[in-house]
Amino acid sequence: MSATPPATLGPDATIGILGGGQLGRMLALAAARLGLKCHVLCPDPLSSAFDVVRRVTEADYSDHAALDRFAADVDVITYEFENVPAETALFLAARKPVLPDPGVLATTQDRLAEKAFVTGLDIGTAGFVAIAASGDLAAALDVVGRPAVLKTRRFGYDGKGQVTIRDGVDPLAAWNAIGGQPAILEAFVPFEREISVIAARERGGAVACFDVTENEHRDHILKTSRAPAAISPAIADEAERIATRIADAFDYVGVLAVEMFVAKDGAGHALLVNEIAPRVHNSGHWTIDAASVSQFEQHIRAIAGWPLARPIRRGRVTMTNLLGAEIETYRAALDEPGTAVHLYGKAGVREGRKMGHVTRVLPER
Amino acid sequence: MSATPPATLGPDATIGILGGGQLGRMLALAAARLGLKCHVLCPDPLSSAFDVVRRVTEADYSDHAALDRFAADVDVITYEFENVPAETALFLAARKPVLPDPGVLATTQDRLAEKAFVTGLDIGTAGFVAIAASGDLAAALDVVGRPAVLKTRRFGYDGKGQVTIRDGVDPLAAWNAIGGQPAILEAFVPFEREISVIAARERGGAVACFDVTENEHRDHILKTSRAPAAISPAIADEAERIATRIADAFDYVGVLAVEMFVAKDGAGHALLVNEIAPRVHNSGHWTIDAASVSQFEQHIRAIAGWPLARPIRRGRVTMTNLLGAEIETYRAALDEPGTAVHLYGKAGVREGRKMGHVTRVLPER
Repeated sequence: MSATPPATLGPDATIGILGGGQLGRMLALAAARLGLKCHVLCPDPLSSAFDVVRRVTEADYSDHAALDRFAADVDVITYEFENVPAETALFLAARKPVLPDPGVLATTQDRLAEKAFVTGLDIGTAGFVAIAASGDLAAALDVVGRPAVLKTRRFGYDGKGQVTIRDGVDPLAAWNAIGGQPAILEAFVPFEREISVIAARERGGAVACFDVTENEHRDHILKTSRAPAAISPAIADEAERIATRIADAFDYVGVLAVEMFVAKDGAGHALLVNEIAPRVHNSGHWTIDAASVSQFEQHIRAIAGWPLARPIRRGRVTMTNLLGAEIETYRAALDEPGTAVHLYGKAGVREGRKMGHVTRVLPER
Repeated sequence: MSATPPATLGPDATIGILGGGQLGRMLALAAARLGLKCHVLCPDPLSSAFDVVRRVTEADYSDHAALDRFAADVDVITYEFENVPAETALFLAARKPVLPDPGVLATTQDRLAEKAFVTGLDIGTAGFVAIAASGDLAAALDVVGRPAVLKTRRFGYDGKGQVTIRDGVDPLAAWNAIGGQPAILEAFVPFEREISVIAARERGGAVACFDVTENEHRDHILKTSRAPAAISPAIADEAERIATRIADAFDYVGVLAVEMFVAKDGAGHALLVNEIAPRVHNSGHWTIDAASVSQFEQHIRAIAGWPLARPIRRGRVTMTNLLGAEIETYRAALDEPGTAVHLYGKAGVREGRKMGHVTRVLPER
């Protein structure tokens, strides 16, 4: 809980951003459109977000002296990644408003707590069992069946910290592969498609969702997002209701992403929540070029105490991540009519690293 | 002429920007989308563009040591205002490519040279006569008639440095009002409307124009721009041809704006060029929200040696400047569906100062 009640920011205010990756960078660019200043704190001297703000703090998240100076320089603090250490968030929240509330992080940093939170709202998820020690695995596999996915409770992203246990896989080998740490065993969902809802919630409680997005992953990393998703209006409405219920339950302020599976369920379909990201999200990047307001501006508006915009989508849109060496394809994309190219200015190319994205917009059918 | 032949920039390059106002700010934001870094040089410590870049030089345009360090830090140099001192441009051009070529400034900084350049291309302008001394005024008024507009040859913008000589006005009083300096006397054009063409030209010579924009001024300051302009396709084509001819004649690289009057001419209409701005232009701000590429990105692409995009306009658009205390109306605009709000983060409100703008987009009729 933030110690200071958040006030509405004036246009001369400064927003503190924890994390200096491309999400922080695009948040800072959105804030700049609105006349707001940003100060980015990140331990990495080559942070992509450092290049687009005047004030930066290159410091570890546990450096209290640096955090203290950072807090003194800003009016409100937000974050671009969900693994902000709880201790950092609490230290800062005692000094300046932190939005979304750090309490959200406690839930979303722990797959078990997150799943329990979601099911507590009567929202479906894949079946799951907590795994405290390797001895729990056999009984858990009896409950969820095979294939199952063993995931660390904490610090997983982009497929890191998870192993699929298919027929013939030794559960103990899987346990060792994820480092023998507290985990969750999830039933494998034979989904038809993956979707996400990017929802923004303002301090007064109003929620605005972007149109539901359909996502394709490659090696557990998002490769392509399409909006609108190829789902029925009824499923789209249900997906937005689920995201809204989650945002309301958190008393959330800012943008949050809810990833879901669309799975066959008898003659119909069921929506199962896979993950909540308490931040702007890769699957919402299309909103920069193909909506009347971007997810980044919605987040800035929400944490500034400004009214949310009602997003209007323009056309059918496909966002494609440029991963690793794929960044070289930007030159060809520059020549495509109606295609927007975004590069993140990162210094080093590594396999699977998110280097940029391109957004292609086609007229509505 | 730049000493070094300009190379195509890689995505890790740094662009130097002379001038730290809102145009420099929006150029830097467009460069950031493309992964390019910017370094802004401006004498004003409160420069609006300083807030969105990591590297700034607060120095006078005549500070050779600062200019030298600035040039050493960047790969290409551009400017956001046409009154860059010629000496500054030449000093920098000896060190790094300056685009658009500083030679353009010599023409566009001098109303007489600019008018002579335009008429030399067989493009129409208001009638004009050079005024070197007050003694030239009487004969000049006989040529252009009354009302006429007396304008300083140099450093005029937003109506500064000009006086209208109507019937009964003493020409000598007008001469004194503009400071008794070299001037140009222009015939008053009873125009139907004012339009502008924002054209981008890449190094290879290809030109891409945005749809012709119609402008309304208030007290000589741009208040509203609308695209498309309410003119016939034939006049729009002619306007784009004029802008292209001017860009070609300069062997221009980057974005340039050509302001024109649409005047009755017998049964038809004539286009008269009023002013050339060798830079991104206020009347092109609508392109950020209502075109597939913005004027700012086109400028960055051109000076980076990257291909221009072919701009596609989305809907009918109105851009309204927030001047001085009008900035307070941004809160109401935040609530309007489909309206984009841009604030420039300027510290002080002054009458007529450009503090931000709002862009309203309506579906195509």
